[in-house]
Amino acid sequence: MNYPNGIKKNIINNTINYKNRGMTLEEDLNITNNYYLENNIAYIYKKPTPIKVVKAIFENNNRVIKEAYYSEPSTTDYNGIYKGNYIDYEAKETKNKTSFPLSNIHHHQIKHINNIYNEKGICFLIIRFTTLDKTFLLPAKDFLNFINLEKRKSIPLDYIEKYGYLIKNNYIKRVDYLEIVDKVWRL
Amino acid sequence: MNYPNGIKKNIINNTINYKNRGMTLEEDLNITNNYYLENNIAYIYKKPTPIKVVKAIFENNNRVIKEAYYSEPSTTDYNGIYKGNYIDYEAKETKNKTSFPLSNIHHHQIKHINNIYNEKGICFLIIRFTTLDKTFLLPAKDFLNFINLEKRKSIPLDYIEKYGYLIKNNYIKRVDYLEIVDKVWRL
Repeated sequence: MNYPNGIKKNIINNTINYKNRGMTLEEDLNITNNYYLENNIAYIYKKPTPIKVVKAIFENNNRVIKEAYYSEPSTTDYNGIYKGNYIDYEAKETKNKTSFPLSNIHHHQIKHINNIYNEKGICFLIIRFTTLDKTFLLPAKDFLNFINLEKRKSIPLDYIEKYGYLIKNNYIKRVDYLEIVDKVWRL
Repeated sequence: MNYPNGIKKNIINNTINYKNRGMTLEEDLNITNNYYLENNIAYIYKKPTPIKVVKAIFENNNRVIKEAYYSEPSTTDYNGIYKGNYIDYEAKETKNKTSFPLSNIHHHQIKHINNIYNEKGICFLIIRFTTLDKTFLLPAKDFLNFINLEKRKSIPLDYIEKYGYLIKNNYIKRVDYLEIVDKVWRL
């Protein structure tokens, strides 16, 4: 069986996505962001995964890491620049059908989203419900409101449908979230 | 002998810095950026170091990385948001006294700086000449001009003094580069 890139990682994370033509949200976003870059629309890129190196040695003049761990992310996955504005988002998939589990977002990431929001950056979550094949943009403001007001461990789909925006599937741009950014942030 | 954090790393990179009260540029920038954040001036942070994982195993329910390598960075070290604007820079130290070796900046990073510049982000280099105890801000425009016009392997100090801006030492803010950003980008 031939797995496209990224699928394997998702199996490890317990979030398998066979829908949406076998593409993970990450792959769709890579295609979308490449499209934005090539067409001079925006420059938005994925940050490196934070890794804590415990042991590194020299081997044939190369530094080889022999022991390291994935650290808890302290920022979001993606950021960049759109029409001169700072833009920043976290992208998550869930197999759940009725809610988005908040265990997907770490404490430091919430702080990061809050910092961006305070400094007036464009910030949001992209949440894909893989089983429903629906992808939403939820603005930071509405995400932070939920976190601050509710003590629940997941955001109900109802809330996301009410305050978020469904991102249209698009063959070329895949997940054209900037169309929604234009509307919400009036750019 | 008691090394402050960061010094060890610099010895590996062959750029020891005993000047400037024993602080590396990275440490000074951390202090400066914390000051900016705590005083609601800007939110600017360091990105994770890109690492390519080759082998990871499960050990006591943890993913442990057993073989990995430092990848060539494809973006800059720092970015964030200042007065709503996207801000992005690379920070480098050199022991050289007369020029800044371009081997310090990778091909992909130049592309990144060019992308930011095209999308009208605030982008620059912070270059510290440790032996001279001088730290400069060189705007992306002037850095890219040099790269495009000159085929030299290093940027002479003369050029950096002419097109760049000396960053004042400040005990509290350490390297107060936003003071210069305000002037150059007229914010």
